[in-house]
Amino acid sequence: MPQNHRSTEQLAVNTIRILSIDGVEKANSGHPGMPMGAAPMAYTLWARHMRHNPVNPDWFNRDRFILSAGHGSMLLYSLLHLFGYDLSLDELKNFRQWGSKTPGHPEANHGTPGVEATTGPLGQGISNAVGMAMAEAHLAATYNREGFPVIDHFTYSICSDGDLMEGIAAEAASLAGHLKLGKLIALYDSNDISLDGQTAHAFTEDVQQRFEAYGWQVVRVEDENDLDAISRAIEQAQAETTKPTLIEVKTTIGFGSPSLAGTHKIHGAPIGAEEAAKVREAYGWEWDEPFFVPEEAQQHFAALQEKGAGFEQEWQTLLQSYRQKYPELAQQLERVIEGELPADWDAELPTYSPDAKGMATRAASGEALNALARRVPELFGGSADLASSNKTDLKGEAVYHVDDYSGRNVWFGVREHAMGAALNGMALHGGVRPFGATFLVFSDYLRPSVRLAALSKLPVLYVFTHDSISVGEDGPTHEPVEQLPSLRLIPNLTSFRPADGNETVAAYRFAMEHREGPVALALSRQGLPILEGSAEKATAGVAKGGYILADAEHGQPDVILVATGSEVSLAVQARLRLAERGVQARVVSMPSRELFFKQDEAYRETVLPAAIKARVVVEAAHPSGWDRVAGDGGSIIGIDTFGASAPGGVVLERYGFTVDNVIAHVERVLQS
Amino acid sequence: MPQNHRSTEQLAVNTIRILSIDGVEKANSGHPGMPMGAAPMAYTLWARHMRHNPVNPDWFNRDRFILSAGHGSMLLYSLLHLFGYDLSLDELKNFRQWGSKTPGHPEANHGTPGVEATTGPLGQGISNAVGMAMAEAHLAATYNREGFPVIDHFTYSICSDGDLMEGIAAEAASLAGHLKLGKLIALYDSNDISLDGQTAHAFTEDVQQRFEAYGWQVVRVEDENDLDAISRAIEQAQAETTKPTLIEVKTTIGFGSPSLAGTHKIHGAPIGAEEAAKVREAYGWEWDEPFFVPEEAQQHFAALQEKGAGFEQEWQTLLQSYRQKYPELAQQLERVIEGELPADWDAELPTYSPDAKGMATRAASGEALNALARRVPELFGGSADLASSNKTDLKGEAVYHVDDYSGRNVWFGVREHAMGAALNGMALHGGVRPFGATFLVFSDYLRPSVRLAALSKLPVLYVFTHDSISVGEDGPTHEPVEQLPSLRLIPNLTSFRPADGNETVAAYRFAMEHREGPVALALSRQGLPILEGSAEKATAGVAKGGYILADAEHGQPDVILVATGSEVSLAVQARLRLAERGVQARVVSMPSRELFFKQDEAYRETVLPAAIKARVVVEAAHPSGWDRVAGDGGSIIGIDTFGASAPGGVVLERYGFTVDNVIAHVERVLQS
Repeated sequence: MPQNHRSTEQLAVNTIRILSIDGVEKANSGHPGMPMGAAPMAYTLWARHMRHNPVNPDWFNRDRFILSAGHGSMLLYSLLHLFGYDLSLDELKNFRQWGSKTPGHPEANHGTPGVEATTGPLGQGISNAVGMAMAEAHLAATYNREGFPVIDHFTYSICSDGDLMEGIAAEAASLAGHLKLGKLIALYDSNDISLDGQTAHAFTEDVQQRFEAYGWQVVRVEDENDLDAISRAIEQAQAETTKPTLIEVKTTIGFGSPSLAGTHKIHGAPIGAEEAAKVREAYGWEWDEPFFVPEEAQQHFAALQEKGAGFEQEWQTLLQSYRQKYPELAQQLERVIEGELPADWDAELPTYSPDAKGMATRAASGEALNALARRVPELFGGSADLASSNKTDLKGEAVYHVDDYSGRNVWFGVREHAMGAALNGMALHGGVRPFGATFLVFSDYLRPSVRLAALSKLPVLYVFTHDSISVGEDGPTHEPVEQLPSLRLIPNLTSFRPADGNETVAAYRFAMEHREGPVALALSRQGLPILEGSAEKATAGVAKGGYILADAEHGQPDVILVATGSEVSLAVQARLRLAERGVQARVVSMPSRELFFKQDEAYRETVLPAAIKARVVVEAAHPSGWDRVAGDGGSIIGIDTFGASAPGGVVLERYGFTVDNVIAHVERVLQS
Repeated sequence: MPQNHRSTEQLAVNTIRILSIDGVEKANSGHPGMPMGAAPMAYTLWARHMRHNPVNPDWFNRDRFILSAGHGSMLLYSLLHLFGYDLSLDELKNFRQWGSKTPGHPEANHGTPGVEATTGPLGQGISNAVGMAMAEAHLAATYNREGFPVIDHFTYSICSDGDLMEGIAAEAASLAGHLKLGKLIALYDSNDISLDGQTAHAFTEDVQQRFEAYGWQVVRVEDENDLDAISRAIEQAQAETTKPTLIEVKTTIGFGSPSLAGTHKIHGAPIGAEEAAKVREAYGWEWDEPFFVPEEAQQHFAALQEKGAGFEQEWQTLLQSYRQKYPELAQQLERVIEGELPADWDAELPTYSPDAKGMATRAASGEALNALARRVPELFGGSADLASSNKTDLKGEAVYHVDDYSGRNVWFGVREHAMGAALNGMALHGGVRPFGATFLVFSDYLRPSVRLAALSKLPVLYVFTHDSISVGEDGPTHEPVEQLPSLRLIPNLTSFRPADGNETVAAYRFAMEHREGPVALALSRQGLPILEGSAEKATAGVAKGGYILADAEHGQPDVILVATGSEVSLAVQARLRLAERGVQARVVSMPSRELFFKQDEAYRETVLPAAIKARVVVEAAHPSGWDRVAGDGGSIIGIDTFGASAPGGVVLERYGFTVDNVIAHVERVLQS
């Protein structure tokens, strides 16, 4: 490589650093140290190795890049701007300001081109990368044909000490090693500093040995500024096709800062004008003007950008031949890339007739999932070691494994949190519709990832079974009480607790058609009757969050019974008993409270007329949030303590989930 | 060892197995496979090595034992019964029944003597054990004197493949290795089976290598039934004083079951009478009668029980001499063992005078914590790498580290979940009052452990700072919206969002005196004024969850403004502006909604008179749950979307947290 090229590269690296410093200074807020240390590896990766097309950030076969250390967001924004993504210098000047495309931490689906994942909460990004690499391997195995590697890209991530301390990253790394994801490459910005100080205070394990134990290749780069050494490490990573690779680059946080480099003081605060001037000097940076991009660097990045267009063009040509040779496969591939459902995707979904014995909603879920899987080949997922309980096994489909990545049944292991983040990575990757499963009570284990799915507007489906104290014998450790109510609080997450098989199917319909955010299903362990009327009403009703399942025989009801899941059948029984006494009750099934409250007032008024104040809400969960439905004149049967270990029927009875108790509450609200 | 003794031990092992099988059969529910495979290691540990006194399960210097694989609860119940804890055979027959002391998974503080931790959710128990070993090392360093090892015990745990797949266990193991906790010994029931099938489907990492990377000693036992080999491994673990030890015992799940051993079918369901009979035959077990304990085994366990009394007697003698030589230290030790606060524990807690500038409640928290730490030596804890932001550093106290375990500042690293579980372990151990800190938004990361603290009634304190969208520039990934409302849903957790310095101090007062469950503080990043009246009213008011901070100038108020945290000052300002217009407003500060609703109706009526329907609630968080306060006639200013990245003041304003908006809402509710 000629010397002058080399020095242009050094200039390019310093341009990234200076833009990052300037962004933080202007915002008077942010994290300069990470970009200063990690700029060389980021530059080397993006300039020399990454196949992406800045002009079309959505090019499907691009290499993916996730900045797991999301606090170093200015590094990413500088890269995006310089490499020619549609992110202007003004946006960099607007770092961390209202309405900008450069929020404090990178946000996917926030309108910032080239941001592949929402990161910042540590451990999530590297675990998203595992999910992306899983999706890539799956799509490659499904769609590639001899001579037609239409899906063939790497997934890169830059992660920090903090990322690697998080348990979620440990789970994800173990899974990635097990799955032998050879196209997953993580660069580890190993600077021995975290927010509070030296990692020596808390983190002294042998990271290399740990990753080798997971089945990763580990490569080490000693000189953070040696672009060639970084390049060689990346090539070595690419060459190892049966193991993911961790490239540990020993770096200096805040590299170049005379007073602050190598200390935690430069982690999370602007360095100030004086120090910024000294840093410029240390870099041999001649320009005082902030946000300045030297002509030489500009030209260099422009040339790199052209290379990117070439990468995509090459692929488009390949795809064109593929279309001719494999028209059906190509059509399907293009459809899943677009994220469109196939025609007749719902053709095999079952409808259930009224039946007192019925079935558990987890069983109906298994049937719905399988009915969809037969028509929707992009449906892809599994369980965190509870498939047999969650009923998520896709029958006739292979296990997703190194020997057959086309398998659609993923065994996540007992790794709920990594599952959550991997699902996000799959959804971010595209081409698959991911689902994951565990017990509802353990939704807590993946909650940080559920939140990020919601924030990132990802179409992820969660199958959470064993949805209440009726779990019974396993006891309070396994009995959700606050989980469903807590999920309802996550903005942009839609949750459903279906009352029977038909509502379960309807919830799946909604989930499949909903692409703007995740959907969580809370499903029963125990059998539930198929309710009269649900076959006709569930599809429309569930999509509105709540609906009238059974109404007063004539005229206005005296009382409205609102329930979800297994308690709807209690309400149905109570209605009949009340009718015998001349009390007219309406039963409202409300599988998704948050969705119901998104309906217009006219619809809500038809279901819950303001004039009818006598209302009883029944749900075997924490009652908080139901006051909005019950109103001042209503009453709620819920649980504000933990559950107990005993047969499920006994627990339900002891906690007041009986027809008698519903009627007692009705009597009370009618008297008041 | 004489042959007949040996065969008695084998009989003892089989007695444990048979009782476990019978318990599951009788309940027709439970997990027989784990006890059948792990009985030899459990027996060997309990019979040959563990220093405990079944007659006094609370003996403070006992070795601790946690069954991390809590689904194997019948193993623990069988051990407890046979070793002479006050757990009758009838309780074993009542396994998993209403009101029994033998719930499906072990529950601490449920009245079952000898159950040291609530386990079942995987990964928690082994991480609790890390916390226990941390507490032991801390107390030993603090109280032991030359020749007086008054605190000197091991912490044992039995964990499963599932435990070791969980990220929380990875975090905790890394922390334990870093801290060189030589008295922590984990027995790994390595049976290659998890709920869904063979671990080969999802878990193929090299566990030994991984734990060595953490700095653990790893010892392997090949023959699960070789009690002597297990003994030697435990001795080897005890001999290594500067590393925790993992003893991997290769086992067969469901050992002895002709049809089911070594398969996941025996993991989580009764084996049935027929198979149970075959198992009896395989064990050479002569008795058909269920729950039968042979005389020979009974005598053997009775002898072991006597040994236990001796262990404690020895210690009581040592303590007696220690009391004489170090009376003050002994007095303190006995006090912290009892969990009583010292006299004048609150003597240095500050009171703040009204001040418009004020201080962030996280800063007040730092002052309160330090004021307490000077008087309460058992206060012990730290942050998950955010001490400088959480303001939890105890000034003048050392960092807890292998070179000085007497240090009281714990560096948990970026390991929120392990922190949560370790805090539980410390509280379960006793002798310390543990606290842990992170940003409120990351409370999600440790939520499963918070739940277990609440279920186990543990006095754990969480310091959650950066409590709302006013975090600002860091953006939605770092801005809690649903976290505080979600914490309020966890039964038996008390949360506070103090309005100013005085309320913060009052919340600490409550937390220190509250021993029946955990307490979470949600604290501001930004400065908040010290409010008029809080110095006088906060102590009593905060302890009731909500109180009248400022009232109508005369007579009944026209409107009640209810707020928490930073929004209380908005309400206070709105009240003044409303007064100018002749509208009389009451300001209710409600730092703990759940606590307020635990007060009697009379008190609640004085604060929120039913007759006053005009109410406006203001809280920069998800509004769910406030309807109960606002009522049908009220209005709520909250946030049901994610936050945004911009300076905190801008974000608050954009989301409607302004005095003007409060007044607009007041006008609306007064008109309706």
